[in-house]
Amino acid sequence: MEHVNSGRHISSQFDEELKEVRNAVLSMGGVVEKQLTDAIQAIKASDHELADRVLSNDTRVNALEMDIDNACTQLIAKRQPTARDLRQIIATFKTIADLERIGDEVKRIAAVAKESFSSEQQHLLAALENLGQLVLNMLRTVLNAFARMDAEEALEVHRTDQGIDRQYEGMLRQLMTYMMEDPRSIPKIMDVVFSARSLERIGDRCQNIAEYVIYNVHGKDVRHTSDEDMEQTVRKTR
Amino acid sequence: MEHVNSGRHISSQFDEELKEVRNAVLSMGGVVEKQLTDAIQAIKASDHELADRVLSNDTRVNALEMDIDNACTQLIAKRQPTARDLRQIIATFKTIADLERIGDEVKRIAAVAKESFSSEQQHLLAALENLGQLVLNMLRTVLNAFARMDAEEALEVHRTDQGIDRQYEGMLRQLMTYMMEDPRSIPKIMDVVFSARSLERIGDRCQNIAEYVIYNVHGKDVRHTSDEDMEQTVRKTR
Repeated sequence: MEHVNSGRHISSQFDEELKEVRNAVLSMGGVVEKQLTDAIQAIKASDHELADRVLSNDTRVNALEMDIDNACTQLIAKRQPTARDLRQIIATFKTIADLERIGDEVKRIAAVAKESFSSEQQHLLAALENLGQLVLNMLRTVLNAFARMDAEEALEVHRTDQGIDRQYEGMLRQLMTYMMEDPRSIPKIMDVVFSARSLERIGDRCQNIAEYVIYNVHGKDVRHTSDEDMEQTVRKTR
Repeated sequence: MEHVNSGRHISSQFDEELKEVRNAVLSMGGVVEKQLTDAIQAIKASDHELADRVLSNDTRVNALEMDIDNACTQLIAKRQPTARDLRQIIATFKTIADLERIGDEVKRIAAVAKESFSSEQQHLLAALENLGQLVLNMLRTVLNAFARMDAEEALEVHRTDQGIDRQYEGMLRQLMTYMMEDPRSIPKIMDVVFSARSLERIGDRCQNIAEYVIYNVHGKDVRHTSDEDMEQTVRKTR
């Protein structure tokens, strides 16, 4: 297919294709959100069967990433997008890569739900569940921001990661205290530590997605910039 | 700039630009490799000054990623690459994202080099250093595979990650035993645990880069496929 690139697309067919890709990202986001919801529920209810389902469903997440990745490559090759359209595709590549890795972290969390914990250890799981809920909220919000390409919401969600980091640090200190008090439980507590860390990492990845939304809307790469710079980018009249 | 897309580029100027981007990735890889080398050396020699340098140099890694990212976006917008050229640019986007995150893991490792360890704890650092050397080798090899776009070497390096995972698992068990034997040292040992995990993650990211090399050379996305499928893709006559 040959066509003249005029620096902007005029094809409504292309708009349609871009919309399809965006919807596919949102579907993938929905699957990942469901995976995290289920993993947290599996921990809460010590539901081994649900944990198994989360583990096996990760292949769906992987397949979705590869499909969307391929669709984006085709779209660039076929449509030669520039400016904002190109930015959207680049942001999509990155977003799905982070979603796929969130899926991997969720798998690690689900694996812990398959372990058996004594009744005294149940409160460890409760702390994990609390952190999980915070992170789940962050994931939901950033997917919303992506769906509506809302840079202001993306900035808000970017900031909530600080709270998650603080909660994670506090939980880590508490877990180390438990380990010191009851050294025999160390291997079990280490599993909880790694799950908490996975949750913290999911928060970081939600931050990444928030940055891609801002990049998509404002055309400015805000990674590694200060919160003030980010705010300035977002508040700027478009 | 308008031009007709004929499905393949004929511009030697474009070849030059692609080469420049590839060289920039190799420079970035060199910086990351140096960062990891220094972090390991800082641990070995308890060199706090060197650790500080690693921590502050991470901004260079971040800046390089943003520069190359931007250059790739410009290249797509300006040149409308297709087929293998496009694949190279897509693979570059992904490679530099992994390199940047390797840089983040290296920072976590360097932070441990700034802690003080008692003489009895020095052997923990020796185990960390051993694992570090393995991972450093893996990083060097995958950067070589990228430089020469050598899919066979990429496949080889992909396989070495198994050995790193085994070594990491063994180290983790050993560290948990130490924690049980000397609970007061738990916070310090946890730092070593997280560093070991960072090294293990760097191995995973080297695997990712190996997969992008295979994708670039053979046009097949080999993520989430079996080792046999990957081998079949690579051994296929081109």
